[in-house]
Amino acid sequence: MIQGNLVIGQSGGPTQVINNSLVGVIHEAIQQKTIGGVYGMLNGIAGLLAGKLIDLARESDETLARLRRTPGAALGSVRYKVKPDDYEKIIAVLRAHNIRYFIYNGGNDSMDTAHQVHLAAQALGYELVAVGVPKTVDNDLVHTDHCPGYGSAARFVALALRDSGRDTEAMGRSSPVKIVEIMGRNAGWLTAAAALGRDEPGDAPHLIYMPERPIDDEQVIAAVDRMVSARNHCVIALSEGAVPDTGLEEVDAFGHKMKGGAADYLAALIGHRLGLKVRLDKPNYLQRSFSATISTVDAEEAYRVGRAAVQAAVHGQSDVMITLVRRPGADYFCETGTAPLAEVANAEKLLPAEYIAPTGDDVMPAFIDYARPLIGEPLPPLGRLAKYPVS
Amino acid sequence: MIQGNLVIGQSGGPTQVINNSLVGVIHEAIQQKTIGGVYGMLNGIAGLLAGKLIDLARESDETLARLRRTPGAALGSVRYKVKPDDYEKIIAVLRAHNIRYFIYNGGNDSMDTAHQVHLAAQALGYELVAVGVPKTVDNDLVHTDHCPGYGSAARFVALALRDSGRDTEAMGRSSPVKIVEIMGRNAGWLTAAAALGRDEPGDAPHLIYMPERPIDDEQVIAAVDRMVSARNHCVIALSEGAVPDTGLEEVDAFGHKMKGGAADYLAALIGHRLGLKVRLDKPNYLQRSFSATISTVDAEEAYRVGRAAVQAAVHGQSDVMITLVRRPGADYFCETGTAPLAEVANAEKLLPAEYIAPTGDDVMPAFIDYARPLIGEPLPPLGRLAKYPVS
Repeated sequence: MIQGNLVIGQSGGPTQVINNSLVGVIHEAIQQKTIGGVYGMLNGIAGLLAGKLIDLARESDETLARLRRTPGAALGSVRYKVKPDDYEKIIAVLRAHNIRYFIYNGGNDSMDTAHQVHLAAQALGYELVAVGVPKTVDNDLVHTDHCPGYGSAARFVALALRDSGRDTEAMGRSSPVKIVEIMGRNAGWLTAAAALGRDEPGDAPHLIYMPERPIDDEQVIAAVDRMVSARNHCVIALSEGAVPDTGLEEVDAFGHKMKGGAADYLAALIGHRLGLKVRLDKPNYLQRSFSATISTVDAEEAYRVGRAAVQAAVHGQSDVMITLVRRPGADYFCETGTAPLAEVANAEKLLPAEYIAPTGDDVMPAFIDYARPLIGEPLPPLGRLAKYPVS
Repeated sequence: MIQGNLVIGQSGGPTQVINNSLVGVIHEAIQQKTIGGVYGMLNGIAGLLAGKLIDLARESDETLARLRRTPGAALGSVRYKVKPDDYEKIIAVLRAHNIRYFIYNGGNDSMDTAHQVHLAAQALGYELVAVGVPKTVDNDLVHTDHCPGYGSAARFVALALRDSGRDTEAMGRSSPVKIVEIMGRNAGWLTAAAALGRDEPGDAPHLIYMPERPIDDEQVIAAVDRMVSARNHCVIALSEGAVPDTGLEEVDAFGHKMKGGAADYLAALIGHRLGLKVRLDKPNYLQRSFSATISTVDAEEAYRVGRAAVQAAVHGQSDVMITLVRRPGADYFCETGTAPLAEVANAEKLLPAEYIAPTGDDVMPAFIDYARPLIGEPLPPLGRLAKYPVS
């Protein structure tokens, strides 16, 4: 293989474990004889274009160890949409630094960027290996069992719904409905993870609404009414994408019209039609940043896909993304594989129909089997009083 | 002391550790010879009025052990405002069950209820000991160093601001402002805890707004502008009570006017005046229910005030609330004490001026010294790249 330097960039929304992939890349790259310098782009491809490169091989072991439990993209992320004539400049920067290994960590937009860099290098006759490392809490990339980042965000969601369920149950009829709004505009993977906190029948969440099955107002009203009648409370996991049309626009304090969110719409609907008090939790970006819910499995896999990307690169496998491939059998384990960047870039993996209950407001056991290993250690079990009556 | 049964009730908003106090009461009560039955009211005083009592002494050790990490009020909570003529009925129920020990766990409304029960028993010549156990994430009760429940919610807030800060920093200029809305309409204790996640100068949160110093629009705009200019991002911890007038009402999807929240107001203000993209995290009730942030110190103290309440009761100390009294010296430890219920019931402890920075948008080191021990184990340290430039 060609001797040269390596560069790694982080792109798109960060996750709790994104820096595990960065550390995996660094650890593997410094061991590879064909790799000289191990560089980082500050703020992704925009930083590369501006020549903002740092020397990652000089970072201390303690820094790298700490980064493995540090949320947010340590290199800085970016949402820059690369323009067609940027690619020539990108190759010029790579050439100037003798960078022969280009590793890009992100979602499908980032995989497209990596693919375009690969094509540009080919077109310009510059020998380069471009490899993608998957990352997204949305879990919507094709060709991989799941995406690093999903497991930790899913652990947050499972805990949030379970624990918020106990809070709501305790308050009973005085404020019987709780809606927790979950990230994921198109794909319901993260919202579905709300079911992973259930221990017993009747546990929260009682209704789960995913973008793959947009809500029907009448069905929701009937379901909430039934749940509150049965148990005095109702806890709803609602994807931000499960209400495609949130109706009338809201007007903010400065008279600007703005679209109301999914949870606001549903709360207004339930209040309007059932006269019930509704409370909202909107953890938003905490779902992807809260370090107390890092999944040990997710962190380890994120690290491993980083190492695998460098291994693939030194073997000359350009234009691929590293994938996770679940080994058959009872014991959960994922090996790494590869998939063509272009195929990942142009596709989106939604929740398959067999993971969604026919009623459209819950998940199927097959989803639980799929997702439970990804959130790491079992959630510490909660208690519940037996409530023996006083004679 | 008089031989009789004990009853315990939980009231008001639950906390992560409220069931530790319940278990503390049960463990202590079953050891006391003067106490016969150990009963629980379902849904607080409303349950007592309805005669809904359960036998807590029959609960298994495993249930009690699990309850020590279970958020939400295991007995069910209540927001019922006791009416003057309810008290005679309450005493009648207590008399019918030979209940001589009345333990009530809650905030200042609950302390008032316990006080009124004490007075009613006296007036009706029924021998009864009424003891309050403090509980509130707002930390606003007088006569106690702090309230059980505060430390765990404060740990959530500290982690949320720290971790969300890394997420916001990574995104940089593309969405530079993050507002995390924190509970506490009148008291800023919980919002102030946002500062406990800082490690180094420049760490999030960059601005902290507490109800004790309501925001001034012009000052906020100037401060946010300065922060974004200096570091490309700005993370704000905003108490829900720091914006006393959120201006124009919002109109929901069904045409109902509703008051916008503090974070919505501030986001609209910053967007309107500075043209910056603002993102919001509103964890709301997760702050008081998320079990992954239970503070070991808080859980232990909540348990201990439960035990202390029973000890005080069997010593005949009626009409008191158990308090936490900080021992002087470098090593943190709180002993338990007592304070008159009536004094706690009618007062609210706000953040003292010496804990608030003169600028009104930060806390003073004295607050950090006060609050840091309460959140338990030190937060696992995060990492940050040294960012050595490529030569």
